[in-house]
Amino acid sequence: MKVGILGGGQLGRMLLQAAANYDLITYVLEKDPNCPAAHLCHHFSVGDILDYDTVYQFGKHLDALTIEIEAVNVDALTQLEKEGVKIYPTPAAIRTIKNKITQKQFYADNEIPTSNFVITHSADAIQGHLGLLPAVHKLAEGGYDGKGVQVIEDEKSISLGFNAPAVLEEKVKIIKELALIVGMNAKGETVIFPPAEMIFDQVYNLLDYQLSPAKIEEKQLWKAEAIARKVVQSLKSPGLFAIELFVDQNGEILVNETAPRVHNSGHHTIEANYCSQYDMLLRIILDYPLGSPAPILPSAIVNLIGAEGFSGDVVYEALDEVLKMENVFVHLYGKTTTKPGRKMGHVTIMSNDYQDLTHKANKIKHTLKVISK
Amino acid sequence: MKVGILGGGQLGRMLLQAAANYDLITYVLEKDPNCPAAHLCHHFSVGDILDYDTVYQFGKHLDALTIEIEAVNVDALTQLEKEGVKIYPTPAAIRTIKNKITQKQFYADNEIPTSNFVITHSADAIQGHLGLLPAVHKLAEGGYDGKGVQVIEDEKSISLGFNAPAVLEEKVKIIKELALIVGMNAKGETVIFPPAEMIFDQVYNLLDYQLSPAKIEEKQLWKAEAIARKVVQSLKSPGLFAIELFVDQNGEILVNETAPRVHNSGHHTIEANYCSQYDMLLRIILDYPLGSPAPILPSAIVNLIGAEGFSGDVVYEALDEVLKMENVFVHLYGKTTTKPGRKMGHVTIMSNDYQDLTHKANKIKHTLKVISK
Repeated sequence: MKVGILGGGQLGRMLLQAAANYDLITYVLEKDPNCPAAHLCHHFSVGDILDYDTVYQFGKHLDALTIEIEAVNVDALTQLEKEGVKIYPTPAAIRTIKNKITQKQFYADNEIPTSNFVITHSADAIQGHLGLLPAVHKLAEGGYDGKGVQVIEDEKSISLGFNAPAVLEEKVKIIKELALIVGMNAKGETVIFPPAEMIFDQVYNLLDYQLSPAKIEEKQLWKAEAIARKVVQSLKSPGLFAIELFVDQNGEILVNETAPRVHNSGHHTIEANYCSQYDMLLRIILDYPLGSPAPILPSAIVNLIGAEGFSGDVVYEALDEVLKMENVFVHLYGKTTTKPGRKMGHVTIMSNDYQDLTHKANKIKHTLKVISK
Repeated sequence: MKVGILGGGQLGRMLLQAAANYDLITYVLEKDPNCPAAHLCHHFSVGDILDYDTVYQFGKHLDALTIEIEAVNVDALTQLEKEGVKIYPTPAAIRTIKNKITQKQFYADNEIPTSNFVITHSADAIQGHLGLLPAVHKLAEGGYDGKGVQVIEDEKSISLGFNAPAVLEEKVKIIKELALIVGMNAKGETVIFPPAEMIFDQVYNLLDYQLSPAKIEEKQLWKAEAIARKVVQSLKSPGLFAIELFVDQNGEILVNETAPRVHNSGHHTIEANYCSQYDMLLRIILDYPLGSPAPILPSAIVNLIGAEGFSGDVVYEALDEVLKMENVFVHLYGKTTTKPGRKMGHVTIMSNDYQDLTHKANKIKHTLKVISK
């Protein structure tokens, strides 16, 4: 079976590591020939995943295609789907999700709980919705890793808003932030990984450190699972999805965002769950039985992010200190250069003892620094 | 760091899957361009690993080299070592081990317990050592996966012996067969994985099914570890080694064979141990701290071997039945054609319950068949 991936970043890299457990021929399309996934596939093509012809030519001889980033040419995928190539997730699902306006509208249309919002086309338009403030202004398209997101605390900061199609969302008082990964196969069977609980970095708005399974009450778990499952079933698409949820001060659970692909919040599943998120997506693509998302042990993830003030050839300072820890798994993405805020790797910690997870996560965050020569 | 592997089989494939967790540039030399490891490295070279010039040219621009099979050109490695390329294990260690006569002599010289033996150059020569019968006759060079090994039960079967340099070993009454994987770094620090307990297939003499950690008494464990460590320390070589041991009817532990590389008996460490055998070898090559060989859970391995009577394009019959099992990990090596006895993949089972391991191992053996179209 010939399976292609649009995008060659770290998610593609880890998907290809898992793909080598099965018998398939892998293809990657990505414009950077030195990207993390370039050397781990059977066939690498240099090209722009946003270009119609490039994506169409890449995909037309494949049996199946998946993505590791939403910023792809969906029109080309729609045409390929018509011609019989299986696309995970469907182009329609990618289209709904990749634009924050249609994504938010999708939640509203399907009665999936999410924060109150309005659609805006300029910063000035926020003036007409002062009742929503404090709010978060999100660009409809083009945002990534914290870019394209602006907090509008009050009337004075309206000018910070975007003069482009965007969503203005009421700011939720977040008690907990969860991520649930859901897989759905072509038959509509679903599988849900235990929720991960996340803490975000205040500076870069990148995932900072995460525990899984999240420590939540059983009733909240059921609610979170029901919502996450409803998102995927409403998208009516096979594939693997990460649903980010907020728990607010009233214990209500709201969908923040959905990613229609393998996700940073699922890295720990490589070691800590019987079937990883990568393995699960491959099983869906290969029409294999869904795997078990059960945890082998609880786990934590620490992301390795390029430190402020360093750009250039990467150095992982004090990596040895982390490699010495017994129950720790280091993943470097093989990116040759770092810059502030760039995702360069992650570390997974496994333990039955949540205190050990938290202690080691903090130790790793304060020990290992991603700097440059 | 530029790291090369001689050989591109499944061991190379799994080593490269693990290598993608770190930041290194990988090179593979192998004559089959469709081998299991070909598409998982940065640079693949088609060439014969037994040819001096081919190995020398491949290695001379690399920082480090390792092997996934002993049948390599050791003279070229010796020259590369002189020129400053780090070789894991050392060419001297490979030379000692790849020839069964020098390997056996090495055990004797270092007072490492092993079965009684004599060196022969013809089948007729066995006549002079009837006291050793029943015995096992092993070709000094060229044996692999059960080829080049002949049991000589009594005087009548002497003609089955080899008319080439060989070792005639007294046949041990085996109560248990163990394999221990030992890593040693350049500083001479060693690390030992818990022993695996093996059962061999009577027909193909390939590893059949394995449990780890082996169920042995603590004193036997200590003895086994001491012997395995002595083998590696006597070889005076950094690298990763698999030491196969026999426990005889008197509880004595004897070294059967050593492999100076990652080994079939360590596949389970990918999922079931904190640091896998592949990760451990990479840590040794990259001069990282040694990892933890501790098991996360007990495990079993079932090898997927080409069934008798089938040759050609491979089909994994009833693969779905195995993929449905919760605590099971399938590894297919991506070989397009099968033949009787060929290693095509393996399945790892993880469980705290040894009965569950045994039950599932047997179920898998009787369910999943490697046949052809």
